[in-house]
Amino acid sequence: MSIVIEYDSFQTTDKSPFGAIQKLSDVCFKVKVHASDTIQKVILHVAQDGHWDTEHQVVMDWHDPYYCGEFTPNNASLYFYFFEVITANEQCFYGCPDGGYGGSGIIYNKRSDVQMYQLTVVDHVEPIPKWYRHGLAYQIFVDRFNNGNPDGHINNPKPNSSIYGQKSDLPMYIRNNKQEVVRWDFYGGNLRGIEAKLPYLKQLGVTMIYLSPIFEAMSNHRYDTGDYLKIDPVLGTLADFDHLVAAIHAAGMYVILDGVFNHVGVNSRYFNQSGYYDTIGAEQSTDSKYYPWFTFTKYPNEYDSWWGVTDLPTVNKSNLDFQKFIYGGKDSVIDYWTSRGIDGWRLDVADELPDEFIMGIRQALDKYPNKVLIGEVWEDASHKLAYGRRRHYLEGGMLQAVMNYPLRKLIIRVLTGDLKPSEWWLELMTLKENYPKTVFNYNFNNIGSHDTERILTMLHNNHDWLQQAFGLLFTMPGVPCLYYGDEAGLTGGKDPANRAYFPWDTADTVTQAKVKEWYQWRSEHSWINEADFAPFYLCDYGIGFVYWQNNKQVLVVLNTSPNSREVQTNDFMLDVIPSNLSAKIKKCLIGKTLDQSAIKVIEDF
Amino acid sequence: MSIVIEYDSFQTTDKSPFGAIQKLSDVCFKVKVHASDTIQKVILHVAQDGHWDTEHQVVMDWHDPYYCGEFTPNNASLYFYFFEVITANEQCFYGCPDGGYGGSGIIYNKRSDVQMYQLTVVDHVEPIPKWYRHGLAYQIFVDRFNNGNPDGHINNPKPNSSIYGQKSDLPMYIRNNKQEVVRWDFYGGNLRGIEAKLPYLKQLGVTMIYLSPIFEAMSNHRYDTGDYLKIDPVLGTLADFDHLVAAIHAAGMYVILDGVFNHVGVNSRYFNQSGYYDTIGAEQSTDSKYYPWFTFTKYPNEYDSWWGVTDLPTVNKSNLDFQKFIYGGKDSVIDYWTSRGIDGWRLDVADELPDEFIMGIRQALDKYPNKVLIGEVWEDASHKLAYGRRRHYLEGGMLQAVMNYPLRKLIIRVLTGDLKPSEWWLELMTLKENYPKTVFNYNFNNIGSHDTERILTMLHNNHDWLQQAFGLLFTMPGVPCLYYGDEAGLTGGKDPANRAYFPWDTADTVTQAKVKEWYQWRSEHSWINEADFAPFYLCDYGIGFVYWQNNKQVLVVLNTSPNSREVQTNDFMLDVIPSNLSAKIKKCLIGKTLDQSAIKVIEDF
Repeated sequence: MSIVIEYDSFQTTDKSPFGAIQKLSDVCFKVKVHASDTIQKVILHVAQDGHWDTEHQVVMDWHDPYYCGEFTPNNASLYFYFFEVITANEQCFYGCPDGGYGGSGIIYNKRSDVQMYQLTVVDHVEPIPKWYRHGLAYQIFVDRFNNGNPDGHINNPKPNSSIYGQKSDLPMYIRNNKQEVVRWDFYGGNLRGIEAKLPYLKQLGVTMIYLSPIFEAMSNHRYDTGDYLKIDPVLGTLADFDHLVAAIHAAGMYVILDGVFNHVGVNSRYFNQSGYYDTIGAEQSTDSKYYPWFTFTKYPNEYDSWWGVTDLPTVNKSNLDFQKFIYGGKDSVIDYWTSRGIDGWRLDVADELPDEFIMGIRQALDKYPNKVLIGEVWEDASHKLAYGRRRHYLEGGMLQAVMNYPLRKLIIRVLTGDLKPSEWWLELMTLKENYPKTVFNYNFNNIGSHDTERILTMLHNNHDWLQQAFGLLFTMPGVPCLYYGDEAGLTGGKDPANRAYFPWDTADTVTQAKVKEWYQWRSEHSWINEADFAPFYLCDYGIGFVYWQNNKQVLVVLNTSPNSREVQTNDFMLDVIPSNLSAKIKKCLIGKTLDQSAIKVIEDF
Repeated sequence: MSIVIEYDSFQTTDKSPFGAIQKLSDVCFKVKVHASDTIQKVILHVAQDGHWDTEHQVVMDWHDPYYCGEFTPNNASLYFYFFEVITANEQCFYGCPDGGYGGSGIIYNKRSDVQMYQLTVVDHVEPIPKWYRHGLAYQIFVDRFNNGNPDGHINNPKPNSSIYGQKSDLPMYIRNNKQEVVRWDFYGGNLRGIEAKLPYLKQLGVTMIYLSPIFEAMSNHRYDTGDYLKIDPVLGTLADFDHLVAAIHAAGMYVILDGVFNHVGVNSRYFNQSGYYDTIGAEQSTDSKYYPWFTFTKYPNEYDSWWGVTDLPTVNKSNLDFQKFIYGGKDSVIDYWTSRGIDGWRLDVADELPDEFIMGIRQALDKYPNKVLIGEVWEDASHKLAYGRRRHYLEGGMLQAVMNYPLRKLIIRVLTGDLKPSEWWLELMTLKENYPKTVFNYNFNNIGSHDTERILTMLHNNHDWLQQAFGLLFTMPGVPCLYYGDEAGLTGGKDPANRAYFPWDTADTVTQAKVKEWYQWRSEHSWINEADFAPFYLCDYGIGFVYWQNNKQVLVVLNTSPNSREVQTNDFMLDVIPSNLSAKIKKCLIGKTLDQSAIKVIEDF
């Protein structure tokens, strides 16, 4: 091959503006091409996702030293692009590197091999309430946080449930020989218990609480909703709920509920397999008003369910009656609870909800001021395919943020050595490029949740790493959300071990104090949420990033290697950082020693 | 064979006195022999159990029409006997029929084939306190009876225990993949709960309560004792115990504790595998003062345990220190609790305790007036062999009674048709013959316990049979003991289903009322405990028995067939009943119809 092509999607010299854009705005592409024979044509190929039949071919113009082309997308959607170079004797293509990363690409000889660059196009810039943008969140798995009854009794234990003898008992599933859960296990955390601990959360620095599901259900996690319009009696009453919401607001905090609308419990009021409810459920009669909500392959025993878990029959979200029930009007689930004062919703398995359904929820929510809608997505949510269909929930009018599991993975993997600093940088830059700016800036970050191993366990009980992970959670772009008890030193592998009861009497107070410092730090640096941000790395041993806005700047740097390192002149990879800042960073760090165990936050440099 | 031999051990014409005798008293045997040739000798062979080297051969004398012989046993022990007949041309033997039953025997041709009759010889007639002889008992499995805390809370739940959400939940074991119990399950019945229900027990007619173990342990059944000198904190305090005992006595009732001395819990103060206790346990150090209590085959992980259940290390009952701890002096376990006022003990797995050990307990107990010692034995306890050794606990100075599981079997099997009336009669007569009279008369009867299926379940939920079973429990010889909740209609198969919580709010009140009538009836007929007793049967469809004393008599008769039957003249098998009574019974029953579902108690006939 005697053709050399230079293009780096991260550089605004090559693609401008950086990252995701709004529809109907122009993107300018510039490519350098060197060839041993005459260059006849350089073509930008670009098409809307799923519309290659209407692919655009932009013949790029020569403006020394670049071939330049512009493109203006008409729709909110993903677009994909690559370049084609035709010389007198050759034809080749240029796309992104294998793995779908942005940045510098590679040459492909065959059209069919080309991996394309992603261009995210949104309908509009999502408005996001300030309380959320500056929020410092805390996730509570309600059964495991605190029991607020003075005598510690469990409110209304369910039939065939099991209650832990002591709060310090480790969680476990009670299964039969077929590994089916036969009794649900409860510690008895409840709404009054959360209210009793608001002073604790307040002093820690929390401004926003995300509650795991609180509607009536059979299980302790309540993702098997039984009745969308009832507080689970194990948690308390409607009055307890109203009192809690008022108390949260009185403390200057906000609260987000978990909305589980993809499926219901098999013993819900709607499906009612066991006849627990007094309604006629879909499984009891085809005359049930809920019958059309579900998809039976063989009535009544075979039906669509979430990932084949028969305990969780999937609801047909296209059913108009179900849509009305969830978000259509003031008696709907969304309206019922939002009108009582909650500040937003986290949508469970958002990637399995149709876009129209999410949009319906968002529209119902937008009748109330300053609400937020977050989705559960595990991957890079900007290009998630679910059930063969591309999801559009981040392109405007739907989700404002998603649970940022990819960030969690980046943090854990770079700390444990699974990811080289350069890989960390590339993956983070790709997220920054793919996500709409508001999503990247205000994504719902975590380093652990009820669905993952505890962070300390993931980090092999290494407390130095734990502090670095907290540091990254609280300094990286996005809204940090701490999983309850991570600040208290809880450990545990996957569910159920990650759902132990909060160790109120035996908490790791050293870790608590450090986490409190991080909450405090981020609270004092809320300007970084709207600042410019760029990551860098140091050879094979360090990662860092810098925020800048007007005359303010903050530098975060971290040695990820197992040894202390002195920073050398040639260690820096500062590609996407403006040169004046790059110089400052170098000046600040060269010759300094980075301890292997510490995260450094440098404000004046 | 041209020899006919007639001998029936149940008939006092043939063997006198009937049944078990006291040592040094004479037994007279009479045998009829018809032979076609000259009878040269009839020999009674008799030997003390295990002493066939000193077999006695009594050549029987001819006193027309019998060959007669006497024997006087010197020792409290079992003896076994058979007869030998020698004629001019033949030799044969006569022993009991196959299965070890008493009554008429059969001829054997070979000495080595002979099954021998049992003769039980006791040291002395056991004194038994009147309160026990006339007692109407009730077994309480403490965790499952009643929670006496006004707010229903569980006292001091144990670490890693599991509490049922609702009292109506069915009991279950929480096991891991290896089927090991990983959490013990509790409903939270306690001592105050029993005290609160004394009025209930009193009105039912109970005079004597047998409590399942109450000393500290890990499990809900507490057969894995952790500390012999401590009330389990889940059940309450020592003060609660004292208060309960006082209240039982104030109500005119008595109380028996469950003594589990064969083994301890692996996490007991004595073995202390988990280090739960602050003592040095045997598994922690060979210097432990408890080390000599146990038998380690490979220290510390391999040791003798009850039926190989490693959770229950067996204690070496020959260890003098352990003996002293259990019964040697006023600080001993037996003394500590007995001196606090309890009225007796039930010894768990009594057949696995050495005779000397049981004797030691009895001697310790006898320092207090009017106490009782009962043993757990599952089979005909009169000739139980355990670990290859014959047990002597019923021959005086040890147990006064045993849990009468054979009677339970007789009742259930004859009602369900598993046993013909004639077989029922033979088995019952054999028990009457083998047991010392006081044991037969005052044995601790049951039709269900914590170790068996619930009676209603055993009877296939047939309520007619249930009433018949209650009728038999309360009219047959022995001290009736009802298993808690059987009167309330509880059902359930084997452990744990037989240990449901007492259904206080949903009890079967019809059954309760009938059981109350039976308690009342027996209370008004306590004279039958000391009366003469004999069973009979009616062809293949009925069983019955009669008590008589001075001018009082009572007849109980039961149709065990699936249809109503009119009693015919030739139906009666009244072999062991005096002729004047036989005539009365016939007169009373002939021509009468016996409903298939009823038990008839006839007082004047």
